[in-house]
Amino acid sequence: MNDCILCSIIAGESPVSSIHEDDVALALLTIDPINPGHVMVIPKKHFTYLDDMDEDTGMHLMKIALRVQKAIRNSGVHCEGINLFLADGEAAFQDVFHVHLHIFPRFKGDSFKINADFTVKPSREELDEVAEKIRQAYKSLPL
Amino acid sequence: MNDCILCSIIAGESPVSSIHEDDVALALLTIDPINPGHVMVIPKKHFTYLDDMDEDTGMHLMKIALRVQKAIRNSGVHCEGINLFLADGEAAFQDVFHVHLHIFPRFKGDSFKINADFTVKPSREELDEVAEKIRQAYKSLPL
Repeated sequence: MNDCILCSIIAGESPVSSIHEDDVALALLTIDPINPGHVMVIPKKHFTYLDDMDEDTGMHLMKIALRVQKAIRNSGVHCEGINLFLADGEAAFQDVFHVHLHIFPRFKGDSFKINADFTVKPSREELDEVAEKIRQAYKSLPL
Repeated sequence: MNDCILCSIIAGESPVSSIHEDDVALALLTIDPINPGHVMVIPKKHFTYLDDMDEDTGMHLMKIALRVQKAIRNSGVHCEGINLFLADGEAAFQDVFHVHLHIFPRFKGDSFKINADFTVKPSREELDEVAEKIRQAYKSLPL
């Protein structure tokens, strides 16, 4: 019925190297680490996208992520910094369609690179115009 | 005394294109967007690193980030996906030393790229060994 690999792990039907489990979330090592000690925190309930997930679950994922990043730092794994990363939607590089928050250790000289065209510098007027659109949309959210 | 640019914005001493403000957090457009509509959610209190910040504040930042990503999607800004990104420590590309959570819209063909050496595939035994270290460190956290 559900061929989600993360649901299969949560159901105990696929191997996992886990860090923490509670009623709402599971923290586990990814099999494709950027660096050793690369953890994902996932909701145990299947949510494909952020928009499907309730706020309480999202906040819980962050709480566990903050604890996990401390644990990575204290574990002896090579760690001089930490990145949190979440990809929502294929255009944002989501590859597994069950919400997952990455927490991975970083160190100087590691292989992780980010690139973007930062040469476009919007004016304050352009920023204000975009902000106004998002601010109005924010105010209109059904909260 | 404090030459933090984000503290200066919070104090009303520097220009800002803001999306949302409450007692704990401010959501604002970055002046160096990856794509138009690139928001940062920041705590109003100065925390240099994640380890300085309490869990409640971190969870609040996530709550606001989840609302902001919905607002970006609803705003009319070009958005086919969303990334959340947080850099903690210089080795993790932190450049402003006041905790900030990025939320930026993505679309196919945009300039944002991630790269890493994913050719190293750890065995399950290697994953279990790393997981055990982090799991023990997690259990030892003073919660």
